[in-house]
Amino acid sequence: MDQKGILIVLSGFSGAGKGTVMKRLMEKYDNYALSISATTRKPREGEQDGREYFFKETEEFEKMIAQDELIEYARYVDNYYGTPRSYVEEQLAAGKDVILEIEIQGALKVKEKFPETLLIFITPPNAAELKRRLVGRGTETMDVIEGRLSRAKEEADGIEAYDYFIVNDELETCVDDLHAVIQSEKKKTVRNAESIERIRKELGEL
Amino acid sequence: MDQKGILIVLSGFSGAGKGTVMKRLMEKYDNYALSISATTRKPREGEQDGREYFFKETEEFEKMIAQDELIEYARYVDNYYGTPRSYVEEQLAAGKDVILEIEIQGALKVKEKFPETLLIFITPPNAAELKRRLVGRGTETMDVIEGRLSRAKEEADGIEAYDYFIVNDELETCVDDLHAVIQSEKKKTVRNAESIERIRKELGEL
Repeated sequence: MDQKGILIVLSGFSGAGKGTVMKRLMEKYDNYALSISATTRKPREGEQDGREYFFKETEEFEKMIAQDELIEYARYVDNYYGTPRSYVEEQLAAGKDVILEIEIQGALKVKEKFPETLLIFITPPNAAELKRRLVGRGTETMDVIEGRLSRAKEEADGIEAYDYFIVNDELETCVDDLHAVIQSEKKKTVRNAESIERIRKELGEL
Repeated sequence: MDQKGILIVLSGFSGAGKGTVMKRLMEKYDNYALSISATTRKPREGEQDGREYFFKETEEFEKMIAQDELIEYARYVDNYYGTPRSYVEEQLAAGKDVILEIEIQGALKVKEKFPETLLIFITPPNAAELKRRLVGRGTETMDVIEGRLSRAKEEADGIEAYDYFIVNDELETCVDDLHAVIQSEKKKTVRNAESIERIRKELGEL
C-alpha cells in the first residue's frame, strides 16, 4: 500500500446530516483529518478560531488568494470562504485522509487541481425525510427551510459529478459505509503503482 | 440503492490464495454467488459435476459457444473452459454479487461485454511469500512451481487492467477488504441512477 493519505470532498444537502456523520467518523476511526476552512465572516457566539474556522480579515484572505495558499475559495454574501492548502498537504503527507466539507463549486475546483480527489455526496433516504430533519431542528424559520429545500433541488442536479452516493438513513451504517468507500479507494490499482512495481521487480529477481 | 447484483472478476497469481479467500468470503457473507465454469476436461477424482465444474463433451461445449451461452471461454491444452451465461444472469437478477475466478484474457472479454464488471487482482504481500506458498503446498514438483512463477511474471504485466489490487497477507483482513471493495462499488454514483432520479423527483414535488 502506498502510504500517502487521500483527499476527500464531502458534500450533501443541508439536512443530510453531514456534520453528525463527520463527527462520528472522526470519533470511530483515527485515520481522518477534517480540513478547517478560512473565512472573512465574523465569528458567531461560541465559535473559536482554528476550530470552526480560521477567521481572517478580508485583506489577509485576499493575500492568501494572491499567494495561492488556498486550494479553493468562493465568495458568498460578501464573505470569503476557502480551504487553506498547507494544513491539507501536511495531513496528507502524514498519511491522514483529509476530508473537506464543501459545496459542489468548490468540489469541482478541488477535483480540477487534484484529479485523485474522491468526491462523495451524502443524502437522506428521501426528500420527505430531508424536510422532516430541517423542520425538526426547530432553529430556523419556514422561510429559511424553504430556501434550503430550493437549494437542495439545485444541488441534486450536480450529483453525477460525484464519485459516490451514500444514503444517510441510520447513522452508524452511514459512517461505516463512508469509511469502507474511502478505505476501498486506497485499493485502486491506480493508487498502488509503487506496490505493483515492487512485486514485479521481486518476481523478476526470483 | 438499485437492487441488481454486480459482476466481479477475481484474478491473481497461482499461490495468491484465491481459493481460500473465496471460500471464506462465501462463508462469512451471504450476498455472493460463485460462478461455476464449464469445461471439456475430464473430472479428477473427487470432483463433482456442478460443484467444481460443469463437465461437458466437446460437442456440447461448442454448441454452447455457437448459441452464445458463454460469457467468455478459452482453450487451454486441448480443453475448453468457459463461463455459462444463464447462471450468472439469474444470480445477478436475484441481487447476488457474482464472482468469476478467471484469468486476465477472460477478465478482459467479460469487461468488454459487461463494462460495469469490477476487476479485482489478488496478490500475496511479496514474491518471496508467493514462492513460499507454492513450495509449501508440497504437492507439486519444482518444475511445476517454476512454471507457475514464470506465469506470475507474465500476469504481473497485466495488473493495471484491473480496477483494484488487494493484498492477501492475513486471510480475514483480505476477505473483509474484498467485501468492502465490492460493497463500496455499489455506492458509485453511476450505479445509482435510479435512486438519484427518485430523490430529484421527490424534491421537485415538495
